[in-house]
Amino acid sequence: MNEVTVSSPATVSNVVCAFDVLGFAIAEPCDTFTLRKTSKKGVTIINRDNFNLPTEPEKNVAGVAILALLKEVKEESGFEIVSNKIIKPGSGIGSSAASAAGVVVAANHLLGNRFSKEQLVEFAMCGEVVASGSRHADNIAPCIYGGVTLIRSLNPLDIISIPAPELFVTVIHPQIEVKTSEARQILKRNVPLKDAITQWANVAALITGFMKSDYDLISRSLEDVIVEPVRSILIPAFDKLKIKSKEAGALGGGISGSGPSVFMLSKDLKTAKKVETAMKDVYSKTGVEFHTHVTTISQQGVHLKTK
Amino acid sequence: MNEVTVSSPATVSNVVCAFDVLGFAIAEPCDTFTLRKTSKKGVTIINRDNFNLPTEPEKNVAGVAILALLKEVKEESGFEIVSNKIIKPGSGIGSSAASAAGVVVAANHLLGNRFSKEQLVEFAMCGEVVASGSRHADNIAPCIYGGVTLIRSLNPLDIISIPAPELFVTVIHPQIEVKTSEARQILKRNVPLKDAITQWANVAALITGFMKSDYDLISRSLEDVIVEPVRSILIPAFDKLKIKSKEAGALGGGISGSGPSVFMLSKDLKTAKKVETAMKDVYSKTGVEFHTHVTTISQQGVHLKTK
Repeated sequence: MNEVTVSSPATVSNVVCAFDVLGFAIAEPCDTFTLRKTSKKGVTIINRDNFNLPTEPEKNVAGVAILALLKEVKEESGFEIVSNKIIKPGSGIGSSAASAAGVVVAANHLLGNRFSKEQLVEFAMCGEVVASGSRHADNIAPCIYGGVTLIRSLNPLDIISIPAPELFVTVIHPQIEVKTSEARQILKRNVPLKDAITQWANVAALITGFMKSDYDLISRSLEDVIVEPVRSILIPAFDKLKIKSKEAGALGGGISGSGPSVFMLSKDLKTAKKVETAMKDVYSKTGVEFHTHVTTISQQGVHLKTK
Repeated sequence: MNEVTVSSPATVSNVVCAFDVLGFAIAEPCDTFTLRKTSKKGVTIINRDNFNLPTEPEKNVAGVAILALLKEVKEESGFEIVSNKIIKPGSGIGSSAASAAGVVVAANHLLGNRFSKEQLVEFAMCGEVVASGSRHADNIAPCIYGGVTLIRSLNPLDIISIPAPELFVTVIHPQIEVKTSEARQILKRNVPLKDAITQWANVAALITGFMKSDYDLISRSLEDVIVEPVRSILIPAFDKLKIKSKEAGALGGGISGSGPSVFMLSKDLKTAKKVETAMKDVYSKTGVEFHTHVTTISQQGVHLKTK
């Protein structure tokens, strides 16, 4: 096999209270990458989308991830990447992670699956550094593993899959820019111990809710007393979005990644669509352009696309 | 039925990373309380142990808990409590919780089980205020529910039982005094966000480890970067205890409650006994008197004692 095409899903990280440690893959949107193994060393990137991302491998998220992988490959080989991105960069639903994770999983297929998932996460994280300036796995891990994933530790890497019931996801993507690096800067360096305890109580309960398929508990636990109060000011009409989504039946939700996208979880498709309508109602009054998605948490991470 | 005798277990709270939110009941030691329903209003306390606890109900943990319960009882009635405590007050393994929880569960039996477990926790927490100056449920809840319990919230009360595999517990109780109120005072009011994130990553992983019966994950997650580094200075030879216990095969552990007891979890009885030997070795060199217990996490909370 010399050529492979993969589908690489969008992901939601910073899941409300579980900031920086929990993420999940969603069924849509997905990027598509076709990789061809070449005998020539190095990486060639061909963009088939309209995002105008850099084609020099060292400046491209996918390129950097593949270069990290190639460092561990002894034989002379390289890759040609044809990139068909759907997930808009800067949307907060793991666009850079989809690129980095997608291409390393594809490359691994062409190399006979010699690398473990953990190794692929390590390679892909090198790509994330280019995108956000920080080495993090909270989008990469769910993108590669699928489902809900917990990143207990980065050094050493410790990724744990969390079983969860069927959950529907409504995402609204306001067409404004929130840079991950800036969203990080506005966070307070110190937090009251009291709030930290509230947060880890909710984190513990959220994990329990997922593993017991207890929707009420999931709903009660989706509270963030530390990050959301600070970051939500960057997102127009955030509070209203949340209130109206919950009124429409959402279990809860919050900022996706570092924004500007906002996600809400629902028990069934009907509710997720009602939440979408509620979100559209709120946003149509803001004057800010937006897109919405209704999808599910997906158990499938990056996977081969059959033609 | 006019008289009932209950067994009320010791409990471990502040389970390492899950400070203030997670606790578990242990099979031993247990207190015994015999309650008799009287037609006379009020509470009479008779101590059959050597702890010299106050017998005025308003100054006694069990008394205050029963008085809180009696406020919700319309008919004229009261209780005579015969207290046979084994769990030494101030040991850090929930002595006051065993008193408060034990008597309210017993009283509820005599009243035809009219109160829910949540209500009993509320009554018992009034007793905890007398003991430590703060209203907290992290010993009360596991004492009443048994097993591992998560207290997501106190207002409103939200207690969640966490399934866990069989776990053996080794406890060492150094015969020194650490007051809960003082142990609280030395905590920092603010903590670095970075450390809080590490902590809730470990909390999430610990819950997952319990629910997946993944002993390795439980072991990796038993790390506290916030409270233990501050409080452990109050406990002689704490670091050595921990190192030697882990060398003996313990999964991990930490300060029980606000100390001075230290607990370690093990996968099997043989290891738990090895851990006990290691703890004894460490402590015999300190010159501090101590007691040890080898027991298990118990699924049984306060329960009727058959004669």
